[in-house]
Amino acid sequence: MKKVAVVGVGETRFSGPQEKTGVELFAEAAMEAINEANLKPRDIKALFVGNVLGDFSEGQGMVPSFAAENIGCLYVPANRYEGACASASIAVRDAFMWVASGFYDIVLAGGVERAATMGTPLATRTFAMFSDARYEYPSGITFPAVFALLAHLYADTYGIPLPKLREQMAKVSIQSYKHGSVNPKAHFYGKYADLTVDKVLGSFAVAPPLTLHDCCPFSDGAAAVVLASKDIAKKLTKKPVYITGVGQSSCGPLSNQSDYLPRIRAREISSRQAYDMAGVKPQDIDLCELHDCFSIASLIAAEGLGFFEFGKAGEAWEKGEADIGGRIAINPSGGLKAKGHPIGATGAGQVHEVVKQLRGEVEPERQVEGAKIGMTDTLGGDGGTLVNMILQRGW
Amino acid sequence: MKKVAVVGVGETRFSGPQEKTGVELFAEAAMEAINEANLKPRDIKALFVGNVLGDFSEGQGMVPSFAAENIGCLYVPANRYEGACASASIAVRDAFMWVASGFYDIVLAGGVERAATMGTPLATRTFAMFSDARYEYPSGITFPAVFALLAHLYADTYGIPLPKLREQMAKVSIQSYKHGSVNPKAHFYGKYADLTVDKVLGSFAVAPPLTLHDCCPFSDGAAAVVLASKDIAKKLTKKPVYITGVGQSSCGPLSNQSDYLPRIRAREISSRQAYDMAGVKPQDIDLCELHDCFSIASLIAAEGLGFFEFGKAGEAWEKGEADIGGRIAINPSGGLKAKGHPIGATGAGQVHEVVKQLRGEVEPERQVEGAKIGMTDTLGGDGGTLVNMILQRGW
Repeated sequence: MKKVAVVGVGETRFSGPQEKTGVELFAEAAMEAINEANLKPRDIKALFVGNVLGDFSEGQGMVPSFAAENIGCLYVPANRYEGACASASIAVRDAFMWVASGFYDIVLAGGVERAATMGTPLATRTFAMFSDARYEYPSGITFPAVFALLAHLYADTYGIPLPKLREQMAKVSIQSYKHGSVNPKAHFYGKYADLTVDKVLGSFAVAPPLTLHDCCPFSDGAAAVVLASKDIAKKLTKKPVYITGVGQSSCGPLSNQSDYLPRIRAREISSRQAYDMAGVKPQDIDLCELHDCFSIASLIAAEGLGFFEFGKAGEAWEKGEADIGGRIAINPSGGLKAKGHPIGATGAGQVHEVVKQLRGEVEPERQVEGAKIGMTDTLGGDGGTLVNMILQRGW
Repeated sequence: MKKVAVVGVGETRFSGPQEKTGVELFAEAAMEAINEANLKPRDIKALFVGNVLGDFSEGQGMVPSFAAENIGCLYVPANRYEGACASASIAVRDAFMWVASGFYDIVLAGGVERAATMGTPLATRTFAMFSDARYEYPSGITFPAVFALLAHLYADTYGIPLPKLREQMAKVSIQSYKHGSVNPKAHFYGKYADLTVDKVLGSFAVAPPLTLHDCCPFSDGAAAVVLASKDIAKKLTKKPVYITGVGQSSCGPLSNQSDYLPRIRAREISSRQAYDMAGVKPQDIDLCELHDCFSIASLIAAEGLGFFEFGKAGEAWEKGEADIGGRIAINPSGGLKAKGHPIGATGAGQVHEVVKQLRGEVEPERQVEGAKIGMTDTLGGDGGTLVNMILQRGW
């Protein structure tokens, strides 16, 4: 297996409704990544793209094929991947393998979504189809409801009074808003930096105990990364970031996990694969972009990845241990909460952030100084898909 | 790169509307493939599934994750691929790479669709989203219209009077119906064996010059194949069928191909990759399952794959050269026309047929005697995705 590097990254701003098509949004991110890698579109050997709702949001299926033509790498294989929110992470992991195997030397992977364009009510209802359509969806469960139930279960399992848990969750959101407010690519750039626990708790109820500020937005946006084999990477960049570990697992329907919840078994399996492949441990990770679709999801993820003891992540956030300068910097981009959540692009956006952080290229207010090892964590649906990646500085 | 074998295949009957969910349909095909390979579900290391319309036809996205749970290989990576009609072929090609790379030794790949359940008018309208939503779809072009235009262009390009071309196209359909009528897995099993040129030409117009009998049906159905590395394959089966060549290419929107049409450049690129990897030539192929979504598509495909000269495929069908016992047996399964077209499953169904043919396991009336090398050809949309595979007897 060849060593695989990220040699270029690109990203649109994550935002509210856009007039650009998905193909055009993706091209913006893709060209940024290609240019950053000092390549031309014709150098790309394959194009792997996550996209979930393209047919619903703008009547366009098979987006990657049209994206390939649009960015000028026509005739390459162009695959669309769908694993709900983890779609782009699947695309990047698959690209990793095609490069690692030696079959292709340069692959462009990423994702695109126009979820904001759909509007939150319709997007929420449509996206609920990515839970189990036999048992979950018919019972009226949308994803906010799933995570509201998990919050109650979390409080009960770890003996944390619900008001206390809600305060901890609020602090998760406040930290994410703080970082997102200084990230020009973030959906909530320049906003919500002054949020307080009272304001979070007092915002309107989405699915109790979750309020508006516990929930990520639906965003429009795209992200792309260029992967290359080590030999090629050395010629293209002085700062190659290597993907040293990948993992993926699926839980199927949430209902079959009931004895294990609020822990998500697929995450523990997937992250173990990534840690083992990279030969590192949770305590080696300097920063992690993890799947905070809801504030409670941050706590569950940070514990499942091994950063904090089960039931203790809320305390860690309260003490600043999950912040920049703490034990591990979690979501210095602002995360799904504040950077935004263009569903099928989110995982590639996480890789974008980790690469920029490892290179030391983000805004000073949110730079994790001296970061050497970063990690991504993307959850698709309510456990249906889980992908983890570990990235390391190559210089 | 390791040598990769198909060690088990399974398929539901392709049919009209079913009551089973996509997850259940896929499980039927998957369990047949797993059992045939003398494996247990827990032996499967990854699950790759093509599915195009699951969210539209039954409100279920991310089908593979739920399918993994349903068949009992929970926690493995479960990827959904979408490349329109070529979705399952992308899934199989991707599985090929993960096994060839040595990362996984056993992968289950396939596809599932409930296109018939949607009904033809709604499915046609919905599936038109997999053409270019910027230029093609808004102009009212559905796929029958695309291929009707290609039929006119084909007649004009090669100087064939349209009535003559329509007769040739009718003979393509009649041959497919003949094979499908004796294939118990076919949508039109036991039907249309007595079709005549007059009956085809006299059936109602779908998009002139295409009549009903020039067009494939939308089907419900699933197909699955188990891929394994050569070492494993030898222990599991006495009749391994090796995938010796794969290719994939994308044309993007049809409109940018106008100077090249009615030839499909992506097919010529993709099939060349497959031929070169396998080290074989078109004349070495004993049978080919090709993408006959419409009768004119068969002629275009057979020429693009190098089986007949451009403009001459119709004559070949008239002379029986494309039939069993002719120069090359095309679509002995009945093809999309008569076996049926469960969109996201079709490519895996083609692999199923080629494997069964190479093993000598199909009904005597449609067995290609002594076949050693087979090929698949799957077209996604109107050129957006093209996948080819070459399979060879391994004993």
